[in-house]
Amino acid sequence: MQAIQSVAPPLLQNLLKQADIEINGPRPFDIQIHDKRIYDAVLARWSLGLGEAYTAGYWECEQLDELIARLLKIGIDQGYSGAARLRLLAHHLRYRLFNLQSPVRAYEVGRRHYDLGNDLFECMLDSRMIYSCAYWEHAENLEDAQTDKCRLICEKLELKPGERVLDIGCGWGGLAAYAAIHYGVQVHGITVSREQLALAQSRYSDLPITFELADYRDLVGTYDKIVSVGMFEHVGTANYKSYFDSVARMLKPEGLFLLHTIGADITTTATDPWIDRYVFPNGKIPGAVELVSALEGRLLVQDWHNFGPDYDRTLMAWDSNFCRRWNEIRLGYGDQFFRMWRYYLRSCAGYFRSGRGQLWQLVLTRPDRKSSYRSFRFGRASGRAVGPQVPSAAHAAADSGI
Amino acid sequence: MQAIQSVAPPLLQNLLKQADIEINGPRPFDIQIHDKRIYDAVLARWSLGLGEAYTAGYWECEQLDELIARLLKIGIDQGYSGAARLRLLAHHLRYRLFNLQSPVRAYEVGRRHYDLGNDLFECMLDSRMIYSCAYWEHAENLEDAQTDKCRLICEKLELKPGERVLDIGCGWGGLAAYAAIHYGVQVHGITVSREQLALAQSRYSDLPITFELADYRDLVGTYDKIVSVGMFEHVGTANYKSYFDSVARMLKPEGLFLLHTIGADITTTATDPWIDRYVFPNGKIPGAVELVSALEGRLLVQDWHNFGPDYDRTLMAWDSNFCRRWNEIRLGYGDQFFRMWRYYLRSCAGYFRSGRGQLWQLVLTRPDRKSSYRSFRFGRASGRAVGPQVPSAAHAAADSGI
Repeated sequence: MQAIQSVAPPLLQNLLKQADIEINGPRPFDIQIHDKRIYDAVLARWSLGLGEAYTAGYWECEQLDELIARLLKIGIDQGYSGAARLRLLAHHLRYRLFNLQSPVRAYEVGRRHYDLGNDLFECMLDSRMIYSCAYWEHAENLEDAQTDKCRLICEKLELKPGERVLDIGCGWGGLAAYAAIHYGVQVHGITVSREQLALAQSRYSDLPITFELADYRDLVGTYDKIVSVGMFEHVGTANYKSYFDSVARMLKPEGLFLLHTIGADITTTATDPWIDRYVFPNGKIPGAVELVSALEGRLLVQDWHNFGPDYDRTLMAWDSNFCRRWNEIRLGYGDQFFRMWRYYLRSCAGYFRSGRGQLWQLVLTRPDRKSSYRSFRFGRASGRAVGPQVPSAAHAAADSGI
Repeated sequence: MQAIQSVAPPLLQNLLKQADIEINGPRPFDIQIHDKRIYDAVLARWSLGLGEAYTAGYWECEQLDELIARLLKIGIDQGYSGAARLRLLAHHLRYRLFNLQSPVRAYEVGRRHYDLGNDLFECMLDSRMIYSCAYWEHAENLEDAQTDKCRLICEKLELKPGERVLDIGCGWGGLAAYAAIHYGVQVHGITVSREQLALAQSRYSDLPITFELADYRDLVGTYDKIVSVGMFEHVGTANYKSYFDSVARMLKPEGLFLLHTIGADITTTATDPWIDRYVFPNGKIPGAVELVSALEGRLLVQDWHNFGPDYDRTLMAWDSNFCRRWNEIRLGYGDQFFRMWRYYLRSCAGYFRSGRGQLWQLVLTRPDRKSSYRSFRFGRASGRAVGPQVPSAAHAAADSGI
């Protein structure tokens, strides 16, 4: 132990100390070094090296998420020499997460992930296979938290029977199904993943939902409501304005648009070239300034809801499911994948826990909308307010789609 | 009539037609020309001329608010030659409104308005004399709407007995009193108006509130919660960062800050020189881009609630009160003041009705806050959700302060 510890470069020793992390220390978030090659990996390739070294088994950490959160927390405001490199780490983690959601532009990366197999996502996600941040204000488990998230979105959108809803980036169709069953709407869901399309069509063939393989820019028609969950992260800053133009074009004048996206605490003006080249092309976590700049004159912000800490909890639930059911899918993936995948889930949890990552739900309208919008939240669990309920007994049928 | 109509310059005729306003037409929002000098006034001094001509009695309009809303609506997106001038009109109306709220920097303008006399504001406002946008989701009258606004703010701030609250721009102390009575907090309210200070101190001497004549930049100490209602409009773009720095400095790490401010649909990068010189120096309605740019790295947006249309209704209620009780104060003001004041209230109502003006309530935290924040809304009136209630029977005492 002592021999390995002594070879840690001063830069790393200093940063770890600043984050209150001890090399081979006794606390669950302390880093356990198993192979000194981790140092070269990190110094040479920084965040990439850290992740690769984890997958290779050079180091271990019982609370990897907490370790990453601590590293990110000290990387924001400090003037240490390593701060610039820690920012790179933050970049890396951001790009990790959104790439793994429904892709529109990053076809290749998207396919690579979804080709991993539906069995993986079925083990990890809730029964609706919703691959975005859940809502945990009142929920005790992932299934309820995703149900609450679906209802939160439907309530914010004030869905009414017979309305036409567009779901941009519909994934495996879980939200579309929930809205169709509980709110009586007709949904058109678009995705760029053939696998998602096939599974969604097969799951929900009995519901008034159409699914289509399409890019949002190619759509025609108008909708009463539009929703887009966990897809904006793939749009890219250069396309924000055309994205919102597309939405404004398809949204009826009195309509509502709900945008659910990861957000960055600090706007990064350019994607790091190394990240862009080796990790996730075409992706970008929006900063608030970029977002409102692109919205100005196109869509009005009626409501902006931040629940970033819920993504920490969602990712930890995914990690728990993944570990619990790993033996069911182990043969198809191998143990190195196990470490890689856990590093992804745990480090992203740390990204949100650190406060660097936000989760934003915005309700937006056309500027010429005449009627007032009243924003919606679930009531507080304590006191006079009430928690989520299924809207009516008539819609009490299960909608998990299986 | 016909003679007067024929002298309207083509530019004005064209704009009025575009806004579906008829000169001397039969509808309540049509403009009634009483003196052709209006045309020279408008062409020479545009929005200033329009207002001065109204005060002088050159024109009349039963639904002045609706007339202004229609003019503002066509000024946004159209390419007509008069568009630039209509933007100036929009500027004017924006600057009108915020100048008439609690001032921090615009001492002179502030005093000029408050020196108009408390009798004016007592006739116009609710019993707490709250001079900012009320909350009308569940209310039927101004008194209830201001009560609901106070409770909305207190609930968003999660006030708990014994907490120390700073109120930046406390006006006549109505919100501070509500919070002290119903939530058991200790409030420190600051204002730059001696008249507000004196009245607030006299009204609420029995409550755990201290009032002080102070600039926010000069304060010391820390607070559990900070609130600022209708004061940010006086801060000015150049001071946004120091304003938020001051708040972050005084806010405890786990604290909450609520910012209530008028917002502009489109960011104006510079104050129009004419407006700045003749109407309202030092004032600025923030645009969303300016706001989030100044917040970045200082405070995190946890919640952003827009209820701009409620300011329309608030201003119309003020106008109604003002007219109803005008005879009580008429001798001290004179009939020209009556027209001027109604033009102010009605034209600002039109500004919000046009969709150009927004009303934003943001809940902000320090970036290093550890605990999650759950945003709050009143439940919907219909269906399962519940409306505003007084928090507990123990706090049921009236708090109008009189």
